[in-house]
Amino acid sequence: MISDTYDVIVVGAGHAGCEAAAAAANLGSKTLLVTMNMQTIGQMSCNPAMGGIAKGQIVREIDAMGGYSGIVADKSAIQFKMLNLSKGPAMWSPRTQNDRMLFAEEWRLALENTPNLDFFQDMVKQLIVENNKVTGVITSLGIEIKSKSVVLTNGTFLNGLIHVGDKQLGGGRMGEPRAFGITEQLVSLGFEAGRMKTGTPPRVDGRSLDYSKMEEQKGDENPQKFSYTDTPKLTKQLSCHIVYTNETVHDILREGFDRSPMFNGTIQSLGPRYCPSIEDKINRFAERTRHQLFVEPEGWKTVEIYVNGFSSSLPEDVQIKAMKHIPGFENVKVFRPGYAIEYDYFPPTQLKHTLETKLIDNLYFAGQINGTTGYEEAAGQGLIAGINAHNKVHGKEDFILNRDEAYIGVLIDDLITKGTEEPYRMFTSRAEYRLLLRQDNADIRLTEKAYHLGLAKEDRLRKVETKVTKSQELEDFLRETSLKPGVINPILETIDSNPVDQAYRASQFLTRPNITLEKLDTIDIIKEFSSKYDDEVREQAEINIKYKGYIEKEKENVAKLNRLENIKIPEDFDYKSLSSLSSEAKQKMSNVRPKTIAQAGRISGVSPADINVLLVYLGR
Amino acid sequence: MISDTYDVIVVGAGHAGCEAAAAAANLGSKTLLVTMNMQTIGQMSCNPAMGGIAKGQIVREIDAMGGYSGIVADKSAIQFKMLNLSKGPAMWSPRTQNDRMLFAEEWRLALENTPNLDFFQDMVKQLIVENNKVTGVITSLGIEIKSKSVVLTNGTFLNGLIHVGDKQLGGGRMGEPRAFGITEQLVSLGFEAGRMKTGTPPRVDGRSLDYSKMEEQKGDENPQKFSYTDTPKLTKQLSCHIVYTNETVHDILREGFDRSPMFNGTIQSLGPRYCPSIEDKINRFAERTRHQLFVEPEGWKTVEIYVNGFSSSLPEDVQIKAMKHIPGFENVKVFRPGYAIEYDYFPPTQLKHTLETKLIDNLYFAGQINGTTGYEEAAGQGLIAGINAHNKVHGKEDFILNRDEAYIGVLIDDLITKGTEEPYRMFTSRAEYRLLLRQDNADIRLTEKAYHLGLAKEDRLRKVETKVTKSQELEDFLRETSLKPGVINPILETIDSNPVDQAYRASQFLTRPNITLEKLDTIDIIKEFSSKYDDEVREQAEINIKYKGYIEKEKENVAKLNRLENIKIPEDFDYKSLSSLSSEAKQKMSNVRPKTIAQAGRISGVSPADINVLLVYLGR
Repeated sequence: MISDTYDVIVVGAGHAGCEAAAAAANLGSKTLLVTMNMQTIGQMSCNPAMGGIAKGQIVREIDAMGGYSGIVADKSAIQFKMLNLSKGPAMWSPRTQNDRMLFAEEWRLALENTPNLDFFQDMVKQLIVENNKVTGVITSLGIEIKSKSVVLTNGTFLNGLIHVGDKQLGGGRMGEPRAFGITEQLVSLGFEAGRMKTGTPPRVDGRSLDYSKMEEQKGDENPQKFSYTDTPKLTKQLSCHIVYTNETVHDILREGFDRSPMFNGTIQSLGPRYCPSIEDKINRFAERTRHQLFVEPEGWKTVEIYVNGFSSSLPEDVQIKAMKHIPGFENVKVFRPGYAIEYDYFPPTQLKHTLETKLIDNLYFAGQINGTTGYEEAAGQGLIAGINAHNKVHGKEDFILNRDEAYIGVLIDDLITKGTEEPYRMFTSRAEYRLLLRQDNADIRLTEKAYHLGLAKEDRLRKVETKVTKSQELEDFLRETSLKPGVINPILETIDSNPVDQAYRASQFLTRPNITLEKLDTIDIIKEFSSKYDDEVREQAEINIKYKGYIEKEKENVAKLNRLENIKIPEDFDYKSLSSLSSEAKQKMSNVRPKTIAQAGRISGVSPADINVLLVYLGR
Repeated sequence: MISDTYDVIVVGAGHAGCEAAAAAANLGSKTLLVTMNMQTIGQMSCNPAMGGIAKGQIVREIDAMGGYSGIVADKSAIQFKMLNLSKGPAMWSPRTQNDRMLFAEEWRLALENTPNLDFFQDMVKQLIVENNKVTGVITSLGIEIKSKSVVLTNGTFLNGLIHVGDKQLGGGRMGEPRAFGITEQLVSLGFEAGRMKTGTPPRVDGRSLDYSKMEEQKGDENPQKFSYTDTPKLTKQLSCHIVYTNETVHDILREGFDRSPMFNGTIQSLGPRYCPSIEDKINRFAERTRHQLFVEPEGWKTVEIYVNGFSSSLPEDVQIKAMKHIPGFENVKVFRPGYAIEYDYFPPTQLKHTLETKLIDNLYFAGQINGTTGYEEAAGQGLIAGINAHNKVHGKEDFILNRDEAYIGVLIDDLITKGTEEPYRMFTSRAEYRLLLRQDNADIRLTEKAYHLGLAKEDRLRKVETKVTKSQELEDFLRETSLKPGVINPILETIDSNPVDQAYRASQFLTRPNITLEKLDTIDIIKEFSSKYDDEVREQAEINIKYKGYIEKEKENVAKLNRLENIKIPEDFDYKSLSSLSSEAKQKMSNVRPKTIAQAGRISGVSPADINVLLVYLGR
């Protein structure tokens, strides 16, 4: 029926699949996106929000790389917040609340406007594999579609099993059928598969809530955005609300614990540690008398509300009974209860850095199928899988982001090196060079790479180059301009900062806490020069000056580590022949097959002594 | 979990369910709409269009009755056409092309803004029935929800089985799970169930079509709308395109006939006769060398295209191969193939005029579950079921529209009296008084009823009363105003109408073909008076004058028939005791239990002789 041979087939149209399809198609691959339902392309399965701590950085990175997540999130945003502004710039994390329907619509329209990208609605139930190489897919209608590569992004759909109390329903999401066939085939081909679990809270009717009993949480006064492109900034925003559980709520929830699939052994698989269910929080933190909940609108117009923090797989009667004791929820009407879902994943140590599987050539995995949780983590993997699928079928080089270049690099290196036994979520603490991997400089870090790949046009590259040049100009000016005590002391006084008795460079004052470029702008000669620059440039110059020492130190560390990254280990290296390696190291390294000494060092169970043995053997 | 007892639970959120829920809730019933997926409320399962011949009249009737279909259709329209304008006003039929996603969104928002209406996402798998009365539902999560009445609107979901060539998939629509449990329970309660079949064409990528080879079909130059409320008229419109199949296309399709579930006996159930699949058309009309197709956009922004007229359950490879020989479709890319779906229905002779089942009190059926096809037919039934469920639980009278009052009345009377063995679609020919049941006067026919029910506010009633008064004024003026030959003959001349040699009333000229009020407006005294009236009033006066004779004749017929409609038959009448009745009449009437002599006369198999027997027995 479909006579074309595609370069890339992407299976699944969630965050991972959409980014994979967009990247491959934009690079020029003849790409097909296969989804069980074209009406659910870009569906947010869980909370109606993008970004957040470490995740917002990933969205910025995807955007700098020419991906669509940031654009779609901007266009469908109903609220923007820059989180962690009280901390250093490495911690600043953009986050949007989104209109769920609009988000899906914008994704679909973005993909429809992408050249080289075709769509097909059907369930993929089998891969065509010849000589350990994937060459196409077979759908539930029995349609064979040929392809030079396949990216699997099945999310929670592979053998999805939904739990609500002691009830179980097959499904990929509530109300949607699950997918089957692929796990069984991959296992027969030698893959190891596992089960993971995730959950989602109840959705409720906003008309039934009393917001006067809650604390309003507005968006930022000057909302920023994710994308470096010309997406609009929000001019109006919707508020969220904060509310707390209490001991009555907890007591009622506890009544359902014996019917909880989490506690009575029905669900054995692990859920996301840092996105626990409400019953998990009560159980693990028994001393806490309350837990915070965010009452989040699902869109501009709908009355539907997402109760963030109240994820649950307790019986629905228990969920609702407990919820009615939350302030403002006394008369709550529920659209649907929370639920847990178990699904198949494939331990990601079975992948290369390109997200290609080690066992089957030209087969890529991205998203929850790799044991991650989170839209942003999924999207980031999708982007990399899409790029590499394209590159491979066009005889181009692997595209890998390093740990010092992007959170996406940290994510993938962690996954394929360390594996994961519970849903992996990104945190700033996972990045050893997080001061380099800021949300503000994702464009500076990545646009050139995107340009060389073909995902960013020249104007975009020029724009970043201009930003760098200009911020350097401003930085130079601030490093060269002396401020005399009579000029600067009045300003220092206003913020209880020690006065000076001689002139210092403006940059030196900027390294003091509480001194910002905005403050220095009250001095005419500063303002006259600095006001020529836009906010992005000013921010860049300011951060570069303020955190110069730290940034330089991190760069040194990177250089050191890179020496180890540069020591390659042959792909077919026989670890078992090195008798001085610990047996754990032999086993783990044979399994992971690290590409470099540095990567070998990150494998859990591989000791510095093992690394020394390797270094000696490799002649260093 | 849901402790409330509802007045009305509506199962299913398609056209029937949405109207039923809106009507019951607007009347003041505590109403719950239960749907398997809140994201698919108001989903158009098949073509992205509302109205059309006889169906547009139904939408206008629903709107006059305070339903939402017309409002939602107006708000999501991308094109408007008044069909059949070359025929008499009884045939004029409004039709819109709609943005599929926007249509669903507008339905959902309309329902969310309806007081008394709650939502719950889950599958209903069982009814709670006590002493032959429904008292609630049980969902797939095992949740019991109590209710004083239940409206079932399951569409194609009950044991839905999708066919594409020789492949079969369970599903309620492609990509959505089916529902089960209800049919089995109803059969065990004594209901007769059957299977019906319907189909849908392929969806294709508009980017792959060559429109230069097709004939453009624009919307009306002065687009009207469905709703009598203040919905906006379209200011811009999208075009459809017309194209034809040819003998090559037919030959290729024929190659798949042996794998057609329709022809090889896999599908036994009957599909909609007047909405046949392309293979059906080729098979039934072998002499036709081409069939017309409409290439319809699915929305303002999407590239998805609906290929109206190419419904098919042939194997997907055959569908696509054939399609590529349609002019402009040479390079067509398919989003999904057409398919057929079989589903359970309940022969509607098991219902009363209120759409309540005869077997189980307070249980109502509406839409495809009653063996109908079409969004409008479904919506009309939903409205009536919703009203009557409300009325029943509040001790109010049955609400029935008669055959001379509305197409909806014809529809329901046909269904419950004659039953249907194939999907029932409305036509103007099914209405014996179609000259009375026009799209232009649905407000005049029905607003007062809606007002007395509580579905129309007083301002709406006043507006209709004003329209009637004003059109009477204008009519009177035209009947009183004489036009002398010198004034009228030049106009008659322009349209080759015989000149007159003495003065006649303006109304007399209007009864001539080709003479319109617009033409008479070239006469100053006419224009001076008539221009005070808006288009709706002018149209009404013009139709009343032009078709006076016919309209009066129909009204006389109605009066005659109403004498028979007024002769009630007792509900427990023992037909079998009347030995002079034919045995077929005894059986059919015992089954249908007609309420009146007139209804008895419409039962197929009941002869005039049988009616005379009844009349004699009932003392007439």
